[in-house]
Amino acid sequence: MLERLESLRLVDHHCHGVVGRELDRADFESMLTEAPDTTPLGGSLFDSQVGFALRRWCPSVLDLPAHAEPDDYLARRAELGAAEVNQRFLAAAGLDALCVDTGYTPEPILEPEELGKLAGARAAYEIVRLERLAEQVAAEEVTAAAFADEVRRRLDARTAGNGGAASERAAGRAGAGGGVVGCKSIAAYRAGLEMAGERPTEVEVKAAAGRLLREAERAMAGSGASPRVNDEVLHRFLVWCAVERGLPVQFHVGYGDSDTDLRRGDPLLLTALLRAVAPTGVPIMLLHNYPFHRNAGYLAQVFPNVFVDAGLATHNIGHRSPTLIAELLELAPFGKVLFSSDAYGLAELYYLGALLFRRGLGAFLGSGIEEGAWTAADAERVADLVAAGNGRRAYRLDQGQ
Amino acid sequence: MLERLESLRLVDHHCHGVVGRELDRADFESMLTEAPDTTPLGGSLFDSQVGFALRRWCPSVLDLPAHAEPDDYLARRAELGAAEVNQRFLAAAGLDALCVDTGYTPEPILEPEELGKLAGARAAYEIVRLERLAEQVAAEEVTAAAFADEVRRRLDARTAGNGGAASERAAGRAGAGGGVVGCKSIAAYRAGLEMAGERPTEVEVKAAAGRLLREAERAMAGSGASPRVNDEVLHRFLVWCAVERGLPVQFHVGYGDSDTDLRRGDPLLLTALLRAVAPTGVPIMLLHNYPFHRNAGYLAQVFPNVFVDAGLATHNIGHRSPTLIAELLELAPFGKVLFSSDAYGLAELYYLGALLFRRGLGAFLGSGIEEGAWTAADAERVADLVAAGNGRRAYRLDQGQ
Amino acid sequence: MLERLESLRLVDHHCHGVVGRELDRADFESMLTEAPDTTPLGGSLFDSQVGFALRRWCPSVLDLPAHAEPDDYLARRAELGAAEVNQRFLAAAGLDALCVDTGYTPEPILEPEELGKLAGARAAYEIVRLERLAEQVAAEEVTAAAFADEVRRRLDARTAGNGGAASERAAGRAGAGGGVVGCKSIAAYRAGLEMAGERPTEVEVKAAAGRLLREAERAMAGSGASPRVNDEVLHRFLVWCAVERGLPVQFHVGYGDSDTDLRRGDPLLLTALLRAVAPTGVPIMLLHNYPFHRNAGYLAQVFPNVFVDAGLATHNIGHRSPTLIAELLELAPFGKVLFSSDAYGLAELYYLGALLFRRGLGAFLGSGIEEGAWTAADAERVADLVAAGNGRRAYRLDQGQ
Repeated sequence: MLERLESLRLVDHHCHGVVGRELDRADFESMLTEAPDTTPLGGSLFDSQVGFALRRWCPSVLDLPAHAEPDDYLARRAELGAAEVNQRFLAAAGLDALCVDTGYTPEPILEPEELGKLAGARAAYEIVRLERLAEQVAAEEVTAAAFADEVRRRLDARTAGNGGAASERAAGRAGAGGGVVGCKSIAAYRAGLEMAGERPTEVEVKAAAGRLLREAERAMAGSGASPRVNDEVLHRFLVWCAVERGLPVQFHVGYGDSDTDLRRGDPLLLTALLRAVAPTGVPIMLLHNYPFHRNAGYLAQVFPNVFVDAGLATHNIGHRSPTLIAELLELAPFGKVLFSSDAYGLAELYYLGALLFRRGLGAFLGSGIEEGAWTAADAERVADLVAAGNGRRAYRLDQGQ
Repeated sequence: MLERLESLRLVDHHCHGVVGRELDRADFESMLTEAPDTTPLGGSLFDSQVGFALRRWCPSVLDLPAHAEPDDYLARRAELGAAEVNQRFLAAAGLDALCVDTGYTPEPILEPEELGKLAGARAAYEIVRLERLAEQVAAEEVTAAAFADEVRRRLDARTAGNGGAASERAAGRAGAGGGVVGCKSIAAYRAGLEMAGERPTEVEVKAAAGRLLREAERAMAGSGASPRVNDEVLHRFLVWCAVERGLPVQFHVGYGDSDTDLRRGDPLLLTALLRAVAPTGVPIMLLHNYPFHRNAGYLAQVFPNVFVDAGLATHNIGHRSPTLIAELLELAPFGKVLFSSDAYGLAELYYLGALLFRRGLGAFLGSGIEEGAWTAADAERVADLVAAGNGRRAYRLDQGQ
Repeated sequence: MLERLESLRLVDHHCHGVVGRELDRADFESMLTEAPDTTPLGGSLFDSQVGFALRRWCPSVLDLPAHAEPDDYLARRAELGAAEVNQRFLAAAGLDALCVDTGYTPEPILEPEELGKLAGARAAYEIVRLERLAEQVAAEEVTAAAFADEVRRRLDARTAGNGGAASERAAGRAGAGGGVVGCKSIAAYRAGLEMAGERPTEVEVKAAAGRLLREAERAMAGSGASPRVNDEVLHRFLVWCAVERGLPVQFHVGYGDSDTDLRRGDPLLLTALLRAVAPTGVPIMLLHNYPFHRNAGYLAQVFPNVFVDAGLATHNIGHRSPTLIAELLELAPFGKVLFSSDAYGLAELYYLGALLFRRGLGAFLGSGIEEGAWTAADAERVADLVAAGNGRRAYRLDQGQ
């Protein structure tokens, strides 16, 4: 099964850009896990599942023997230069298409198109981060009364390049060669995932926008900080804006850095919203999910439009990835599971995410063949679905190509 | 160990009736998992752990080769007819006794006695669904003041056939050849499992009954819908009615369809109630439990009257059942774990539930023997307990036979 | 790997005293798990993972064959006498150092120094239970206004023997040969782990102390019971008292007896407090964690000062310990994981805790070597860290020796 999976090019339905600059050891460790950085108290972050996985798999891509020591690895990385390193790892990831969340840019990173070229992918699509779009509106001249319309107008504008996803969905066509194919909510990082179901009224949105604008004014007058959407009504409004346009909505769920309150990132908190959105048939993508991946698998089974992945966690837990993928697939139907790397910054993470996904899914499917639980033909069909087919169908990526 | 388990007839302490009518593919898929049905967006529900398990194990019972394609399988099923199919799978399940929850009947299903006969079981017992009993009372001419007594009277009447469980418990005898042996609460599907401990006062119950009756009146005047118990006080009152009669109480916990709010189905929410009921010594059965089965195992260890199973999940997660059972048995003492299929509708689910339970428990016990963690004799003793002994003891099934 | 681990002496960073008296079967079973005792309804607690593990591993220490029957085992135990039995098991545990929580003493147990001698450990340190210290203050003549200062004074007095941890931390020295090296909070057993972050103000502490003192007065006037700290403000105050002195703080998390409300013991509830304490760099130790150990592993990754263990659960789940340790190490960096037995009462539990930890970590590390996920040299380094190095570094145990 592993060979089969190695031959499949993947649809990475959720990733970020890669950093183009050169990185020293402190920079590198700070991007390796979700920890802010290495400390004398806690020891090197190379001493972790993802650190060991990186030392196992990445050195050979840079012409070093497996299990290279961190300093040797980083010296070789510096010798080759970031551009060459990024190119090698992205190419080695074996990606067919990427959906790039362009909303997180603490420092300059590659744009989707460049990323897609480096990866040798057929297409690189864009995912619009909803809160960032709303915050851009709030940072400009807008009244509370005009806020909702302006958000909708911009979302329409962002998706106009590919004809508008809603109309495509209706027409059964899809944007070839790029364009916006979905949105993302980071409610889990702000107000939390516990949301009501129904679309908020215009009056509710106006009131919430007023609060945001007043806060934005204060913030900009003071520290010059930009406004932050952190309000259940606004998160929910944004999700419904996407849903009404037929745009699949990705949710950050579970595992993230120390800014998240993991308890508020349990996907079960989304139950009311999922129930309300289900009749629209617009896909909802639950990202990462660890350590709530079994909860997510349940939601993928009982709601017809819910899809799940195990991105970010897959490479962070290293050689435990087969267990994670097996647990996710306990209840999630095989037509509802996607691949994502959720890679950010280090090109190694694209490669590791893809490699550990292939190994994890391969181990799951292969062990089933060995035990006689299913046939090789069925396993191959499932591999195709999870590696790429489900993503293509849910985002309507291939239509028109 | 697997052979040993295959030779043991099981006590299925929680199941429902089987559907007698012929089923087309859409019907069949809608009963296969907890998803409402198959959709073009999500793909066939045969592409799931339970779907693959069904195709692995069920075709041979219908004289087909393993891993038959869904359409071939369903064609053969139609050819044999529902009656023959039901008979074959129930007989193949190898059941010694069944405890049938008769409270969920969206369509006509077999009664406990018929079911027991099909299964070749020594006895089929009944489990009274508490909320349904209360809703029947509420749908009739009753005042809020008379509600509590009427509920108690009916519960006594339902259990009178086997002499009254409470007196039996006191006397150490049990109902041979059927009768009511326990009750079930579906609080998890309604107000949730977060309940206070103490028995509600008559005043509290009267007030809650008043709310229910007013709602029932409105509901019947409007849509003709029947009233629904959805009130922490009433759920708790009903549980205490059963406890006071010495009747074991089953709780739906965790995994269910999209009507449940899984977050409110965590068994830890029952802690206060379990603490209050513990001194009575009346068994409390936590059903399903997935994905909270480790939480349930903890409760089974620390509360002397709490029992647990992994029904419904065992067949839904297919060849992962050994992991589930191993996780459940991490903390749950071996004298506190029960078997149930929680099968409803499809006769295949009785068979799969029993088969995957036997394989899961067999793998758990067998691996321990291989590693030298325990002896074959101890493993056989545990197999006897979990397969049937614990259920017989907790429900006092065999006394008098 | 197992041989390597067997050769390593462990730092048990959290354990309690052992009972010196002779034990009958009922006594023994009541200390074996977290269940209060064995019941006819639930069966013997020897029929459990820990019971089977005890019968597998402990008889040989008492010159019996493996898998001895419980009664034979207990007869031999009585024959040898408690003193000899305690000495054998503690010596067999292979401990280098112990950190003993001296705050739980429902009956007379050995003091840290005696325990350390029995174990042949180089040093036995003390962990001060914060709530007990506060309750001792509350039971004496103190006003609400003087409460906070008196608590701080006593904490200083308790830690004065080893020069004061705070100054040591600053000076980079540590208490040789015993002394107080940390504190413990049992908030999880009382008000729960959901706490605010910031240090409470003196006014808030005074008000909370007033409530405690009034309750203490009533309690002592009535039943003679001693006062109990059960107030979020006081738990948090006590934690900050320790943090301000540079003393590592252990939190009971997750698994415990039926007095705990497991739902309120999820380590994620500590997020706000962990965020507030992080800048101080004072280590926070999350104890036990099961079944929330993956949540704990996440916290250990993203907060630089958070450490985790799987004590208590490791021996309770018996031959499943490799899975538990592998799950804990999914996200927790290898420099942030500690060993503890959390043994109390039965000397067997020190031995089993150590043995099953060694086997679990050995299986985890060994399987990685076999798969080529890491080298034997890296695995050995990780074994050293988790077995002892991390504990020595976090508690500064070795400095000055």
